Amino acid sequence: MFGGTVANLGSGRHSKYVENTEDMTMFGCFALTELSHGSNTRAIRTTATYDPSTQEFVINSPDFEAAKFWVGNLGKTATHAVVFAQLYTPDQVCHGLHSFVVPMRDPKTLLALPGVLVGDMGKKLGQNGLDNGFAFFDNVRIPRENLLNKTGDVTPDGRYVTPFEDPNKRLGVSLGALSRGRVSITRVALINLKLALTVAIRFSATRRQFGPKDLEEIPVLEYQLQQWRLIPYLAAAYALEHFSKSIFMNFVEFQIEQAVRDKSDRQEEMGREIHAIGCSSKPLGSWTAQRGIQECREACGGHGYLAMNRLGELRDDNDPNCTYEGDNNVLLQQTSNYLLSWLHAKRCDGVRIESPFHTVDFLEDFHKILESKFTATTMDEFMDSAVALAAYKWLVCFLLEESQKRLEQQRASGKDEFEAHNNSQVYYCRSLAIAYIEYNCLQRFHELTTDQDTPAGLRPVLTKLCTLYGLWSLSSHMATLYQGDYLRGGKPAELVQMAILTLCSQLKDDAVALVDVFAPPDFILNSPIGNADGQLYKNLWSAVMQGSQVLERPSWWKEFCSDKPVVGSLRPKL
Amino acid sequence: MFGGTVANLGSGRHSKYVENTEDMTMFGCFALTELSHGSNTRAIRTTATYDPSTQEFVINSPDFEAAKFWVGNLGKTATHAVVFAQLYTPDQVCHGLHSFVVPMRDPKTLLALPGVLVGDMGKKLGQNGLDNGFAFFDNVRIPRENLLNKTGDVTPDGRYVTPFEDPNKRLGVSLGALSRGRVSITRVALINLKLALTVAIRFSATRRQFGPKDLEEIPVLEYQLQQWRLIPYLAAAYALEHFSKSIFMNFVEFQIEQAVRDKSDRQEEMGREIHAIGCSSKPLGSWTAQRGIQECREACGGHGYLAMNRLGELRDDNDPNCTYEGDNNVLLQQTSNYLLSWLHAKRCDGVRIESPFHTVDFLEDFHKILESKFTATTMDEFMDSAVALAAYKWLVCFLLEESQKRLEQQRASGKDEFEAHNNSQVYYCRSLAIAYIEYNCLQRFHELTTDQDTPAGLRPVLTKLCTLYGLWSLSSHMATLYQGDYLRGGKPAELVQMAILTLCSQLKDDAVALVDVFAPPDFILNSPIGNADGQLYKNLWSAVMQGSQVLERPSWWKEFCSDKPVVGSLRPKL
Repeated sequence: MFGGTVANLGSGRHSKYVENTEDMTMFGCFALTELSHGSNTRAIRTTATYDPSTQEFVINSPDFEAAKFWVGNLGKTATHAVVFAQLYTPDQVCHGLHSFVVPMRDPKTLLALPGVLVGDMGKKLGQNGLDNGFAFFDNVRIPRENLLNKTGDVTPDGRYVTPFEDPNKRLGVSLGALSRGRVSITRVALINLKLALTVAIRFSATRRQFGPKDLEEIPVLEYQLQQWRLIPYLAAAYALEHFSKSIFMNFVEFQIEQAVRDKSDRQEEMGREIHAIGCSSKPLGSWTAQRGIQECREACGGHGYLAMNRLGELRDDNDPNCTYEGDNNVLLQQTSNYLLSWLHAKRCDGVRIESPFHTVDFLEDFHKILESKFTATTMDEFMDSAVALAAYKWLVCFLLEESQKRLEQQRASGKDEFEAHNNSQVYYCRSLAIAYIEYNCLQRFHELTTDQDTPAGLRPVLTKLCTLYGLWSLSSHMATLYQGDYLRGGKPAELVQMAILTLCSQLKDDAVALVDVFAPPDFILNSPIGNADGQLYKNLWSAVMQGSQVLERPSWWKEFCSDKPVVGSLRPKL
Repeated sequence: MFGGTVANLGSGRHSKYVENTEDMTMFGCFALTELSHGSNTRAIRTTATYDPSTQEFVINSPDFEAAKFWVGNLGKTATHAVVFAQLYTPDQVCHGLHSFVVPMRDPKTLLALPGVLVGDMGKKLGQNGLDNGFAFFDNVRIPRENLLNKTGDVTPDGRYVTPFEDPNKRLGVSLGALSRGRVSITRVALINLKLALTVAIRFSATRRQFGPKDLEEIPVLEYQLQQWRLIPYLAAAYALEHFSKSIFMNFVEFQIEQAVRDKSDRQEEMGREIHAIGCSSKPLGSWTAQRGIQECREACGGHGYLAMNRLGELRDDNDPNCTYEGDNNVLLQQTSNYLLSWLHAKRCDGVRIESPFHTVDFLEDFHKILESKFTATTMDEFMDSAVALAAYKWLVCFLLEESQKRLEQQRASGKDEFEAHNNSQVYYCRSLAIAYIEYNCLQRFHELTTDQDTPAGLRPVLTKLCTLYGLWSLSSHMATLYQGDYLRGGKPAELVQMAILTLCSQLKDDAVALVDVFAPPDFILNSPIGNADGQLYKNLWSAVMQGSQVLERPSWWKEFCSDKPVVGSLRPKL
């Protein structure tokens, strides 16, 4: 985060920080969030005031509520920080949020530098290796050159200059640069989900409980209920595997464009689109993982609750993915705003809807799609992801139109833009952003399964996974499909349900092989009930027996047995 | 669990165990689950073989997979256990699962008794105060009298005798006795939810982020999105508060019946009904709490991820409620079986549907209810919980009929009972059991809000909470309501959504007062961001600054700074 941000937002004069980070002689951190401000970064209160007499910036925290908080690596180790602060020129004008390299600790002693109060935040639910810290600045002076000056600089005499004439382009580029984290988190969350699925599916294939006859028990994965709890998440993991790689390549393309053709229109459009993708792919990835890991935990019963089997750790480590780099629910607003802006551009300026990564191109057929109806009537038709894909296209268009209507209603009833937007999130804009990214994920997976470059031997199983993912995701929107009259009567919903159960059942025999594809070695997975050999009980029993002091008496056995106080003897004697 | 089970399943000869437990001179535990068997208790493999020559039972674990596992209190402390084992008489006949008091450790030394291997299970995700342990028995001998003989006994010469002529009644009573745990867990889960809501709602009322103007931020609870995330769970907490007390009183009534009129028909019917209630109220309570706590964690952003704020601990401590005393998904089958048996009794034997606690009485109007349609069309009508109540009645009847049809289809296609039932859970029996218990919870809350004994000043806010809970719960079944043609067109779903948002908005100003009602003192709540004084940042900052060694250098600062190895120096020298 430190090196990357300096490279992205700085210039040639900051290359030493990037080099020193890369050769690991410098450890830096990224300090944006404050105790009282996270989502609303524009309200960050740390100040950087330029003093032309010494050509320095003075970094200051006005009070403890403006202390930097949640800074990874800062608790005990970082010697430098990229600090985001409001830039003030000597004329008292605030030029908004900028970033500065601030030395925090003496690299020789690790003691805090004068004016810097820095410390450890204490235990988190998980991710305790991240060394989160806080920092409070008491008029700390840094050289003028420490301003990361890609989007704006201050001259030695104190004038603010920016290379961007059009502030929109500047915003587009900044948004794009911020997407790296969110695009990456989509994949980080997936890694947690894959580990949890490995444990739960191997467990379910070896744990036997009940059976057709009293003494003949069957693996719990043979039960429809257990399949339905786990296999859709397996399908989601495969969908997200392809999706997270694919959007990462979009991000790389954006970065190449940035490197090759600075400040182009295309670059700005790419920035806006990758921002819309990242702001919804992170919620999709982190929530799918959160729910999937919880289901895996429960599907492994009590043994899933034993810490050594790691499902709790995975849940705890995944959890912050829902929060950092923006709360999921707040981020989704960025995506719906992006989609609404396309509809607006189409209606008001008649532009053709076409984006660099093509995620919104289908909206060009908006009206035609809205007139479409659900047509599949046989199970055969349902065994193709095209059914869910068509339904998703309609769903995105419907929610886009409904969100637009809702916003207009709010405005018409006298609400200002702030309130109109706030009151259009639940059931409208929020659902729209979720449907858009699910559609995108499904659509890319669908393309992979039908791509002639995908090995023919893999296509059947990938098609099943893709179809299952599509229908299962879609099933959480069934009410909306009915509401908008895309569906009618009991049959379609019943067919969706039957198709999901059929696909789960068809995939269950491949489930163990499908987790083996992405499972790490046992040593890394480190979960006795999830070992590849399937020796569930032997591994678990042996891990329990190797616990520390497992068979020993507790140190306090005497107090518990023979020396215990007589009832009433502990009452106050006064 | 020890004292209660001995009192419930034993007789006069076991009263010393109950007394010694009550005066805390004996610490016992409850040992049912084995390493390889939890849900399928009938397949428990520990044996208790009667030896008439010494008038003793021999308790034995055939192999480590049959070791008792997950026994609370057994890890380090318990001196006695109620052990469930298959009872064998000398004629080699197995009489099924019975329970026995087995001495485990010497009460004077806490050392394991001969033949008993007992130890600690290691760290769990939460609830580490429960001291879970395991035990393996190598032909341990106990006196004949240690058999808990309420449902069956063995004479000194080795004959099996039972006071129950009708095995169904015996089952009913046993089921009822097992309900204490599940009924209690419903409330335990609620306690976790109430604590999490206290933290999240107080946080949301004091945390400000964004606002209509740049420098004027509003509390996040003012946002529709935040209200929608939290306030329905507040309504659920109030619904479950009344519900969990109310079903506990049902259980007490059952126990009184047991004490007063042993082996009556009514007792058996009460046992079956309280079993159906407990097997679904535990899933309802534990899942609502699990999801609610997760939402609270996310709604508090990063600060919710800080361990000191306790949301992680609450989530971890609540989690086993989904698993112990039966996996939620498995338990729900007991409830749907109960409902299906009523439909069967009605259709085949023409009995009137009427149960001791009246939870199924409405099914007597099955056909009339199935013909009903959704009629509310104005927002005023939606402000009454009767709308959701009527919809739930239809939903339960519809799912009951569909489940019955599904089962018949499965049977007709040649599936045996085991498979037919397994293949009718997802979308059918499972949904049925959930709808039944949600209906029950709503219906009891509805009665409270309309009861003349409920203080008139409280009725308006309770009515809003009840209506919100009803519509919000119902909203997860909207697709089914459309599927079964109870709803038609876009209007009803839209009205349900608008009513939910309206109620959230109406309740948000009362939300802090509503959590103050059930919040414990700050000292007990022990969450800096959730303190009653609303001094969010002051409390959090002060708690962080009081952390251990918060401002100190780490012990390894020298290795990190000056003594660190030169790059490459750690490569193998061979």
